Amino acid sequence: VAAVGEERLIRKIRQWLGAACPPAPEGIGDDCAVLPVASRLITVDPVGFGRHFDATVPPGWVGAKLLKRNLSDIAAMGGAPTSAVVALTLAPAVSVAWLERFYRGLAAAARKYQVSVVGGDVSEGGAAVFAASLTLLGNPAGKRVVTRSGARIGDYLYVTGVLGGSLASGHHYKFTPRLAEGAWFAGRREVMAMMDLSDGLAKDVHALEPKSAAASLFAAALPARKGASTRAALVDGEDYELLVAVDPGADLWRFESAFARRFPAVRLTRIGQMMRRGRPAPGALVLRDVQGYEHLS
Amino acid sequence: VAAVGEERLIRKIRQWLGAACPPAPEGIGDDCAVLPVASRLITVDPVGFGRHFDATVPPGWVGAKLLKRNLSDIAAMGGAPTSAVVALTLAPAVSVAWLERFYRGLAAAARKYQVSVVGGDVSEGGAAVFAASLTLLGNPAGKRVVTRSGARIGDYLYVTGVLGGSLASGHHYKFTPRLAEGAWFAGRREVMAMMDLSDGLAKDVHALEPKSAAASLFAAALPARKGASTRAALVDGEDYELLVAVDPGADLWRFESAFARRFPAVRLTRIGQMMRRGRPAPGALVLRDVQGYEHLS
Repeated sequence: VAAVGEERLIRKIRQWLGAACPPAPEGIGDDCAVLPVASRLITVDPVGFGRHFDATVPPGWVGAKLLKRNLSDIAAMGGAPTSAVVALTLAPAVSVAWLERFYRGLAAAARKYQVSVVGGDVSEGGAAVFAASLTLLGNPAGKRVVTRSGARIGDYLYVTGVLGGSLASGHHYKFTPRLAEGAWFAGRREVMAMMDLSDGLAKDVHALEPKSAAASLFAAALPARKGASTRAALVDGEDYELLVAVDPGADLWRFESAFARRFPAVRLTRIGQMMRRGRPAPGALVLRDVQGYEHLS
Repeated sequence: VAAVGEERLIRKIRQWLGAACPPAPEGIGDDCAVLPVASRLITVDPVGFGRHFDATVPPGWVGAKLLKRNLSDIAAMGGAPTSAVVALTLAPAVSVAWLERFYRGLAAAARKYQVSVVGGDVSEGGAAVFAASLTLLGNPAGKRVVTRSGARIGDYLYVTGVLGGSLASGHHYKFTPRLAEGAWFAGRREVMAMMDLSDGLAKDVHALEPKSAAASLFAAALPARKGASTRAALVDGEDYELLVAVDPGADLWRFESAFARRFPAVRLTRIGQMMRRGRPAPGALVLRDVQGYEHLS
């Protein structure tokens, strides 16, 4: 991109985004973008060369994943996405052809999930740098958002889909963010808390634990991906599935069968229960023996 | 930061942000932040080590500037800021002490301008990398936003403050974003278009030119900073002043004196006029002889 210059590069980016980027001031081209719909949910997640992908990965997959991992966060609140902005840090040596395929992949995903890419920024980084950070806005799909903090002792824990082996299977590029499922959960009173799984169930589940509670998970119940071990299902990360806490007073049969009717192709599995800390359910996994991965360590 | 680990680092960041970061889900800690006020304006701008600052700059200044350059974009639409998220790319060698001062500077500016820092992301970059990108939301301060696209042939051009020498004088760290002035301009019917000056007047002014028009600027009229040349006022960049186009049918004396009453400490200078392309006003500067700076070139 070194030979192109900022202004031409931004014109090219608008062209690559195509219908995913509305004309200014709704899209790229003014000091701010003016959103047609005011938004109440916001999240931000990056992809970085060397960390989240390397030269063997098709750039279009990287662009799509950048959007989809943020969509997974919107899904986890019971939200629907509206608009995004993208900040790039680029080495001058990044090729225009690579960048075009990155943006075309992002644009295709944006059209699919009805997200407008309304702005961004391009700045120069050192050698071998490509980092992109996407900020995604959304709104509650229904009447409420579901936070991580509503779970109570006794709540049952459910997870969508299957876990583990995301990197080996390519799931971390191919996944479909659970937007429809998240919106459905938010519309169900028995759902007390929700989050998406990105760092591995064993690590992430702690974020749903209220004070004085700890999750008891059962190895035999874990829906592992084909070829993935129980340990992989607990620690691999990048599952982009939803973990929900459900009121134990609810009619679980009714809840499970309503989900199955609405999402016949998606597994929903009861994997454990919130217990009083220090009083795990008999046979529960000891989570301090396993660890989801930790960034920066 | 290598020794700290992501979870502890995020806890520290929340602590450094203090009152600038509300509790989750309004602030950091859930899959998304839930904004108390839905927002319609969005902008994103970065700071990067080696590009926007170096090791001689106090980290608190860098954090404050990251917010203020985005505030300048909100000001340029006639907006008021609401909330921000910050994405960091860090080398493991960045010290916790440096990062603390960066965040405390950001937090102090956020409190001053009533911005909540509601979320963010930290990811690892290569050696010698520190890049931060801030996405800022806002809403129109009054009934309308002012875009870059409303200017017409004949409009007068005005600029706030003084131009040039921003880097040498330290203005690019010390400036106050023109939020009050931008909101005031948006409330005046005679203001047709507005933008903030970041890449230098000579380059930026083209963004206000409607098709078939070109700006005629007058060297003698340019409000250069003390010690800055006319050329510096045209090309230095990082002025963070507002450039506005004003309806030539308006009562300019009334407009100028109303501004002077409301902002007695801020200069407002008529610097030129939009002319038909190829028909510059006599004595106007020939802007193709000067150039604002261009990123990535």
